[in-house]
Amino acid sequence: MKTIELSLIRYKENEFIAVNDTLAVEEPLEISLVYEKEGLLHQKNISITMRTPGNDAPLVVGFLFTEGILTSYEQIENLQQLGENQFLVHIKKGVSLDLSKIERHFYTSSSCGVCGKSSIEAIQTLTQNYQSAARTKVKKEVIIGLNEKVKAKQIIFESTGGLHASALFSIEGICETLSEDVGRHNALDKLIGSQLLINKLPLSNHILFLSGRASFELIQKAAMAEIPIICALGAPSSLAVELAVATNTTLIGFVKAHSFNIYCGKERVE
Amino acid sequence: MKTIELSLIRYKENEFIAVNDTLAVEEPLEISLVYEKEGLLHQKNISITMRTPGNDAPLVVGFLFTEGILTSYEQIENLQQLGENQFLVHIKKGVSLDLSKIERHFYTSSSCGVCGKSSIEAIQTLTQNYQSAARTKVKKEVIIGLNEKVKAKQIIFESTGGLHASALFSIEGICETLSEDVGRHNALDKLIGSQLLINKLPLSNHILFLSGRASFELIQKAAMAEIPIICALGAPSSLAVELAVATNTTLIGFVKAHSFNIYCGKERVE
Repeated sequence: MKTIELSLIRYKENEFIAVNDTLAVEEPLEISLVYEKEGLLHQKNISITMRTPGNDAPLVVGFLFTEGILTSYEQIENLQQLGENQFLVHIKKGVSLDLSKIERHFYTSSSCGVCGKSSIEAIQTLTQNYQSAARTKVKKEVIIGLNEKVKAKQIIFESTGGLHASALFSIEGICETLSEDVGRHNALDKLIGSQLLINKLPLSNHILFLSGRASFELIQKAAMAEIPIICALGAPSSLAVELAVATNTTLIGFVKAHSFNIYCGKERVE
Repeated sequence: MKTIELSLIRYKENEFIAVNDTLAVEEPLEISLVYEKEGLLHQKNISITMRTPGNDAPLVVGFLFTEGILTSYEQIENLQQLGENQFLVHIKKGVSLDLSKIERHFYTSSSCGVCGKSSIEAIQTLTQNYQSAARTKVKKEVIIGLNEKVKAKQIIFESTGGLHASALFSIEGICETLSEDVGRHNALDKLIGSQLLINKLPLSNHILFLSGRASFELIQKAAMAEIPIICALGAPSSLAVELAVATNTTLIGFVKAHSFNIYCGKERVE
């Protein structure tokens, strides 16, 4: 994860002093698809997202998957990185991409997922027919322990104060992986992409922990990976709860050391 | 500002209890431009953003302005609201819109501003030649007081815990207006739009307070409104500092009751 050192002036106790500090780096990442159609190679710019460099391959793969552009890692021939901030994703010959979907995603894909979508109806299409069938159950003691475990792992956040985290826990509360980014959608894409790269999807026996609020888009991305239980440090939005209900996802907010709120899917908490 | 009540299950002190809670509403807003070209009326979908309903007209106007699609409120004939979540922006006859720019923004515009931009170079074009010439100076006592003043005003956040705020202060530290939204870019667009509607731009004698982190996009939007001093509760990203330096904006982060960090533009702090 990329950070930079910079000098700044701190005001404290009535004094101005020069100090050095660490900042999270934010740089644009451009993703393009390269695919064959009617015997010709085509290249299409899919997305630019502002992200913190680091774990870029998982971010690219996770983004393409959670946005429904690709359905498996096997559809990718190889990932070609051009410089620091650009990826060409070569699609395997014979993989049939829904080009109208790509066309749509050219307008729609983004770090926040819904930006620029070409119609309001389009925002809910990805998980339209999905309902989690997972009978996974989690103990309440596991839930109230998540926050501290993430804090212990979230090293960059500590130093910069500027990163969002997504963490994947086993149902017993073991932190399997954690991703950080200036954008919370990127942090989740990095997390899901890292699991896609090691062929661990679907994540139907896992808990997702979000370091901030739970928005509609984060619930949608989690549903694409079939994560049945989402715990957030902050509040959900109204649409996040609606989508969690529709996809039969357990949504828990305001996870603290002694309390939490269950918005839906209580049957998975014991 | 729209909120909803819903029932949920709270776990606290080893007990599950049913309670009611208030959530921030998150709904998609679609913005389309209607304009005349060669004697014919055209309608073009510009953006969909997930926002908290409320102050939608300032959001629409602010978004079009901070993204560089319109340069003044006078270019708008009228704002037509279709249902709760759709706006048609009728452009005055004779206003020459840069259609290539609209074309570009059809891909690029979003609540996070950079999503889907068609090239990495495009992200920095809006404020390319702008440098704040404001000689505005702010007292350090004013800066350390901002946080408490915003907290006192941020009523919805208190009840939902789910909203970002942008607040506009006079240079003496008087809060002139405050906007809230589930998206922090929307909160700033609502704020700038509200000032555009009452013909208060440029805001070159004001302080902007952000309730969260300072990202590149927020600095860019503030620069479009010529705000010379930005104070954020959280950390800036590296690119935010870069843009603040390039636009000669004073950028202050981690604003607390007794301390703050000046990342650039110290000459405006006294």
